[in-house]
Amino acid sequence: MTTFSPELETTIAGVRSDVARLHGELVRYGLVVWTGGNVSGRVPGAPLFVIKPSGVAYDDLAPENMILCDLDGAVVPGTPGSERGPSSDTAAHAYVYRNMPQIGGVVHTHSTYAVAWAARGEEIPCVITGMADEFGGPIPVGPFAMIGDDSIGRGIVDTLRGHRSRAVLMQNHGPFTIGVSAEDAVKAAVMCEDAARTVHIAREAGPLIPIPQDRIDSLFRRYQNVYGQATDDRRALEEPR
Amino acid sequence: MTTFSPELETTIAGVRSDVARLHGELVRYGLVVWTGGNVSGRVPGAPLFVIKPSGVAYDDLAPENMILCDLDGAVVPGTPGSERGPSSDTAAHAYVYRNMPQIGGVVHTHSTYAVAWAARGEEIPCVITGMADEFGGPIPVGPFAMIGDDSIGRGIVDTLRGHRSRAVLMQNHGPFTIGVSAEDAVKAAVMCEDAARTVHIAREAGPLIPIPQDRIDSLFRRYQNVYGQATDDRRALEEPR
Amino acid sequence: MTTFSPELETTIAGVRSDVARLHGELVRYGLVVWTGGNVSGRVPGAPLFVIKPSGVAYDDLAPENMILCDLDGAVVPGTPGSERGPSSDTAAHAYVYRNMPQIGGVVHTHSTYAVAWAARGEEIPCVITGMADEFGGPIPVGPFAMIGDDSIGRGIVDTLRGHRSRAVLMQNHGPFTIGVSAEDAVKAAVMCEDAARTVHIAREAGPLIPIPQDRIDSLFRRYQNVYGQATDDRRALEEPR
Amino acid sequence: MTTFSPELETTIAGVRSDVARLHGELVRYGLVVWTGGNVSGRVPGAPLFVIKPSGVAYDDLAPENMILCDLDGAVVPGTPGSERGPSSDTAAHAYVYRNMPQIGGVVHTHSTYAVAWAARGEEIPCVITGMADEFGGPIPVGPFAMIGDDSIGRGIVDTLRGHRSRAVLMQNHGPFTIGVSAEDAVKAAVMCEDAARTVHIAREAGPLIPIPQDRIDSLFRRYQNVYGQATDDRRALEEPR
Repeated sequence: MTTFSPELETTIAGVRSDVARLHGELVRYGLVVWTGGNVSGRVPGAPLFVIKPSGVAYDDLAPENMILCDLDGAVVPGTPGSERGPSSDTAAHAYVYRNMPQIGGVVHTHSTYAVAWAARGEEIPCVITGMADEFGGPIPVGPFAMIGDDSIGRGIVDTLRGHRSRAVLMQNHGPFTIGVSAEDAVKAAVMCEDAARTVHIAREAGPLIPIPQDRIDSLFRRYQNVYGQATDDRRALEEPR
Repeated sequence: MTTFSPELETTIAGVRSDVARLHGELVRYGLVVWTGGNVSGRVPGAPLFVIKPSGVAYDDLAPENMILCDLDGAVVPGTPGSERGPSSDTAAHAYVYRNMPQIGGVVHTHSTYAVAWAARGEEIPCVITGMADEFGGPIPVGPFAMIGDDSIGRGIVDTLRGHRSRAVLMQNHGPFTIGVSAEDAVKAAVMCEDAARTVHIAREAGPLIPIPQDRIDSLFRRYQNVYGQATDDRRALEEPR
Repeated sequence: MTTFSPELETTIAGVRSDVARLHGELVRYGLVVWTGGNVSGRVPGAPLFVIKPSGVAYDDLAPENMILCDLDGAVVPGTPGSERGPSSDTAAHAYVYRNMPQIGGVVHTHSTYAVAWAARGEEIPCVITGMADEFGGPIPVGPFAMIGDDSIGRGIVDTLRGHRSRAVLMQNHGPFTIGVSAEDAVKAAVMCEDAARTVHIAREAGPLIPIPQDRIDSLFRRYQNVYGQATDDRRALEEPR
Repeated sequence: MTTFSPELETTIAGVRSDVARLHGELVRYGLVVWTGGNVSGRVPGAPLFVIKPSGVAYDDLAPENMILCDLDGAVVPGTPGSERGPSSDTAAHAYVYRNMPQIGGVVHTHSTYAVAWAARGEEIPCVITGMADEFGGPIPVGPFAMIGDDSIGRGIVDTLRGHRSRAVLMQNHGPFTIGVSAEDAVKAAVMCEDAARTVHIAREAGPLIPIPQDRIDSLFRRYQNVYGQATDDRRALEEPR
């Protein structure tokens, strides 16, 4: 059984609680069905993260059945929930945490409209101001990657490193989002589906008016400042390592 | 700390309560996600309005964290909620209240179908009787305008002054609605999305049958009378200043 | 103040309760927004029906604020709710009750997909077995008719008399449904929107396979028998007066 | 009145409870309206299954009004709920249980997008990884079949025997799904509608990227193992009898 300092235990308990609660937001916004989708959150100050167990109903998620993993995605033995397997996407989350140290949360869903763009391998163009605010440009497509090794994680990191967007549409698969915290990544998942749906519907009925690049830049910069949360970390996302 | 007469305090409390409660209608009808969207209400008899704080979850909105502003959009210091920033759209609301004295409420959302029309810069044609009743004709498009000065407010007022519609689709952005009260503006936001969705879906499948203008006029006049709320104020919306 | 025999009072109370409760089904299935839509139910054995008041929120509907009307659509004075105006569609409901004695309930909504077909003036073809069961063929379109006299009621009756369908799409307006009871009419409103949505979506993606007429006939006859409620009354709907 | 051993009574009670509860999942995911749709579950170790009664509201379903049938679809007399008629689709469920001994649950809905594909008689192509995981390839179409004899059951069995998919779209009618348990069949119904909706929306906007067959095979095999429930039974579905 693994033990931690009382301070770290308290920190881990807080992350468990956040991650469990944030799964409810995926349900609220209709981003997931059955047991699909997953949220994880990094444990600040430790090489650990907390993720959803595999195949457990959303109604049954609670802090104590969230699973604590190290940055290789291995379950920390003897911790609450460790008798269960973690999400089958754990390797992809772990890869992101290992390779993007500024990232505090990762989310994966199969939300309808985002998957639809992914099935065509088409990025979502930035034609609405809400998308400029949140993503600072188009939402990009990542490669087709099979589950089971680092392919998905590498596809996420290679696509989002140096990119303003916190969302990537993995081809034929679905969206992964990242953020400075688990909540920030969940917000990105919600806004990604909202953008995917709105732009899909807009384009069904005729040509879209582009937003000039300098306006997109200006909207993005303003929004990141006005909302002012963890701006430095977010700026770091844009910088190649 | 700002103080008001007991009568004005009571009036302000009522507006706070209405504005907080009415945000729930945006959630109920699926017009907003996360912390997006905002409702404001004018304080009758005073150069003041009440608006949503910035970045607060819908579950946490309550009368005491609504924010009281003057007609320049400045937060009234020392009043409940004033420690927080008001909605980032406050300047646009303030511009409307300064320039349309008959208006008692303003609402902004990024509701899906209304934004879709806005992304094409296309007005919604009036082909259903419910839209004739409520808006008296098409829902118009306003200019592309950047946040941060009076551009959005001016775009709203220039488009809606002298127009029957209480909704404008700001290009590439989304709907703003006005009303004789905050509730009336919320109703306009609900009906605007309903019209945007229905007409979008109708047109996907073939040509729409127009409603003759004299029938639209007659439906609009009847509805404004039958429902009879604040008809004089509403009529004022149609008159250029 | 109007008084009735104790037996009739009990009957009226039952209809008030049913009609109030059934409005909740319109909300549950997303057929209405704000205060739109209305359900009415005939009072068995008396020339009376019960209908929703005008402009009251769905949350506030209760048996005691439903409104009792005679078959000319006049509010029965001195009865509960009579201080309010009845639904602005009351004249249309009354016309149906006067002219289709076998009908026990009428419903009107502006449900999205049904209105979409109505805006094109296009009947919904019967290409799914659920529609054959419920409507026995296509859902027809009625004329464009203005509110304020018998035009809407006459359009409903002229279209549905001698027709298997319990739903009519009034052009540019929306669906009206009838039934042997208020509940039966509400079911027809739910199934009408379901059919309108499904067939719309089906046809977006390619040509639909027709169902041979004799199969439609056989499905309809079987369903009306198997479910066996008030079959005689339903059969009466198919017979011209 | 039919009596069983105490052990079998306990087993039947468990199936009644599961089947009643699982109907709630059809409502939660919006797969059914009014009283449409039905779930059944085989009683392990006995030639019996439990199914929904006909025409009862979803709010009123409970273990004690579920109906116990033999494998010919006849209601077992003197058991709870037996005074009511079983679902009008009982004959189709019974045919599946008689002819696919490895199947423990059957579900039927008229879910919107699945019915839309069925109305065109078009199988759903496997272009998203979630569909490869769950169905191992396309979701096939079954024949047009009339209710009232074994036609529907035979169409289901003839289509799904030897097929990886646990869902079939009966032409002009809707989806039937099977599973190793009632819960597994309900999951298949949820995932079938999710796939039908996502692929429909994806294809509206342009050509879809196919997933190579060997990747589909590999995703399907992995998912069936990782989730590891009743793999042997599931494998049996792929083998012709």
